[in-house]
Amino acid sequence: MKTPLLIVNFKAYREALGQEALKLARLCEKLSWDTGKAIAVSPSSADLGVIADQVKIPVLAQHCDNLPAGSFTGWLPPEAVRAAGASGTILNHAEKRLEISDLEALIRKCEVFGLETVVCADNRLVAKACAALGPSYIAIEPPELIGGGVSVTTAQPEVISESVEAIHDVGPEVGVLCGAGVKTGRDVSKALELGTQGVLLSSGVVKVENQEEVLRDLLSGLGT
Amino acid sequence: MKTPLLIVNFKAYREALGQEALKLARLCEKLSWDTGKAIAVSPSSADLGVIADQVKIPVLAQHCDNLPAGSFTGWLPPEAVRAAGASGTILNHAEKRLEISDLEALIRKCEVFGLETVVCADNRLVAKACAALGPSYIAIEPPELIGGGVSVTTAQPEVISESVEAIHDVGPEVGVLCGAGVKTGRDVSKALELGTQGVLLSSGVVKVENQEEVLRDLLSGLGT
Amino acid sequence: MKTPLLIVNFKAYREALGQEALKLARLCEKLSWDTGKAIAVSPSSADLGVIADQVKIPVLAQHCDNLPAGSFTGWLPPEAVRAAGASGTILNHAEKRLEISDLEALIRKCEVFGLETVVCADNRLVAKACAALGPSYIAIEPPELIGGGVSVTTAQPEVISESVEAIHDVGPEVGVLCGAGVKTGRDVSKALELGTQGVLLSSGVVKVENQEEVLRDLLSGLGT
Amino acid sequence: MKTPLLIVNFKAYREALGQEALKLARLCEKLSWDTGKAIAVSPSSADLGVIADQVKIPVLAQHCDNLPAGSFTGWLPPEAVRAAGASGTILNHAEKRLEISDLEALIRKCEVFGLETVVCADNRLVAKACAALGPSYIAIEPPELIGGGVSVTTAQPEVISESVEAIHDVGPEVGVLCGAGVKTGRDVSKALELGTQGVLLSSGVVKVENQEEVLRDLLSGLGT
Repeated sequence: MKTPLLIVNFKAYREALGQEALKLARLCEKLSWDTGKAIAVSPSSADLGVIADQVKIPVLAQHCDNLPAGSFTGWLPPEAVRAAGASGTILNHAEKRLEISDLEALIRKCEVFGLETVVCADNRLVAKACAALGPSYIAIEPPELIGGGVSVTTAQPEVISESVEAIHDVGPEVGVLCGAGVKTGRDVSKALELGTQGVLLSSGVVKVENQEEVLRDLLSGLGT
Repeated sequence: MKTPLLIVNFKAYREALGQEALKLARLCEKLSWDTGKAIAVSPSSADLGVIADQVKIPVLAQHCDNLPAGSFTGWLPPEAVRAAGASGTILNHAEKRLEISDLEALIRKCEVFGLETVVCADNRLVAKACAALGPSYIAIEPPELIGGGVSVTTAQPEVISESVEAIHDVGPEVGVLCGAGVKTGRDVSKALELGTQGVLLSSGVVKVENQEEVLRDLLSGLGT
Repeated sequence: MKTPLLIVNFKAYREALGQEALKLARLCEKLSWDTGKAIAVSPSSADLGVIADQVKIPVLAQHCDNLPAGSFTGWLPPEAVRAAGASGTILNHAEKRLEISDLEALIRKCEVFGLETVVCADNRLVAKACAALGPSYIAIEPPELIGGGVSVTTAQPEVISESVEAIHDVGPEVGVLCGAGVKTGRDVSKALELGTQGVLLSSGVVKVENQEEVLRDLLSGLGT
Repeated sequence: MKTPLLIVNFKAYREALGQEALKLARLCEKLSWDTGKAIAVSPSSADLGVIADQVKIPVLAQHCDNLPAGSFTGWLPPEAVRAAGASGTILNHAEKRLEISDLEALIRKCEVFGLETVVCADNRLVAKACAALGPSYIAIEPPELIGGGVSVTTAQPEVISESVEAIHDVGPEVGVLCGAGVKTGRDVSKALELGTQGVLLSSGVVKVENQEEVLRDLLSGLGT
């Protein structure tokens, strides 16, 4: 994925399921073209194939399971994510944690299938541990700030800058994203100043009324 | 869903992911139209929305999670399944078991969202317990026969007939399906004779070379 | 176990771990002898062997795992519970739910090892389903009342009486216990009047200051 | 714990449950006294309190759960492990993996309760990641060698030496142990030569007929 970038996690929000998911993904695609800035979307697995088929911006799964293709009813191996047309996956989100060995194995399998990996971490030590596993990106999301009204860049800027340092100590090539509470273009530009390559956000886009306006503001923070 | 019926579980088989999934779903749809018999398909969640959008036969999720729509990254609530256009879901498959209380709660939620429920059970007692929870269908799948070469209708016909009796004892209105090892039209007609409303099968369709021929044979077993 | 009976679930409460667990178990044993009434205790697995060794009243595990003895680090098979000297186990507690097929298999294994099974259920339908699996006892615990100040016998007496009926419909030989919010001897005697064989309780004993006094009151509700 | 050391994981082997667990723990204690070498034992949680009470050598839990003491039926928080008298715990064993964030949180909680942590890792990258989390020890156990007849020190000595290096790169103060297939005193001394502080083993002690003889041989490998 091109950086700096904005990743919009649709979670399982009613406002971003089925037809609504497709509408939001198309809006993101339009704004990415309009502004020349990078946006990726991460819809529910049920909408993954449709959206990967309909939009040209990067589409990420929200999770996948450490399993090969095969006799695994109800599970989502990286190969299924790839076959559906996605270009990567979020892994170890605070709402869907992974066992450490599965996380390592999944990052390897995603490399094989050409899927980029965005691994979430809740603090500096976990971020450093994740860096040792060699993902494409690590998204720092202090759990107490997820879905809240205050951006981590304001509430705890040192969490971000210290995490960037810890990550680059172990994996200098790993990209860092900033999550949790990001709401405005100013929050985004602050995140870049702290050494990240972009932001991962969700309710701040999905659950607002004026999605286009908010997205334009956020994208403005990605710089020129 | 109309009965008697055939449900094809795509699992996470490579042969039934992405484009291959869509092709197989379309074949099932064509044969359903040609023969006037009922077929439903159950693709990977990643392909759920695409297939529900592209074919007119019933499409089932392989699993869903006992959660409301909301802040649940990586999970699949019934509402997401509904929004993707599916008409029901498999629950408690041997490869993705559910806690008993979640199973009960999911059956209730699926009723609310108009989703039919196909609950898998591995023996007579579990089938009877599931019947108490009031699903649309119970599929009997002795785990030792799943994916094997011998149909449960031949290997253990009494498992099916005793399960039908146990289920109807507790829930007279619950449909019963027969799973595990079903390969031929003869297996299907035997399943109906044992008191079921159809079969749930997977590798016997997904992994054979001549899918159309095999499906036509299976459908012939559904009677006239 | 002799009925009617009181089961005290120690959970992982600090007030009932290690030395405190042993003290509480001995108090229960003393009161059982004093009054001639039946009490069983269910300590943390870490204290299971010690307490089974030190007291003569029935000792139950709080959970066990559907696994044989063997190469299973960190798991608790029924055989380990038996070897530690326990006489039974709670299963499917609201805080540690089991998959329905594991629950069925565990009840069978516990029978083999001579362990009594107390299966928790959160509503009438789940209780009925559990009855089909043939446990020794089913404990009805509406989750919204667990740990609360109001006894289910007062707040929702019909939940108990309807569950007793549903359970006996499917498994006439299954004992029924009443959980959630039981505090006094009066709650206990009300539970027996509603058709149960006793109560399962926790914070109402573990976290009170005057444990002996409270236990004596509760035991008085078990009748003469 | 004193190093170099031998840790004997009892798993849930029938040969090391209940009375047998106590007998084996006492043998380990006797040999530790006889030889002046360090041995620790890790019994089933059901036997944890009894053994911690009866022997003076270090006793480790096989696992614990990332939860506080409280209303958690069937779970094992570090505080319960501490109250039972254990001096530490294995974490993230191949048979009981932990989510990465839980692992980090547990290591912190164990520090607070004075419990040493032995974290298992299946390869060099996972070992490096675990080192970032700051446990007392990391045990390298390539899963394909667990329970097998060939020691990792012979089959893949470079896995051990490279893991020692990777671990010390990130956490110079973390002790390293060698697991998987260790059978003889020679395997043990080879493990120390490769830079470890000892070995973690299981079936090689638990399931042999002449436990005392085998233990004496293993201890001889710990040096003088």
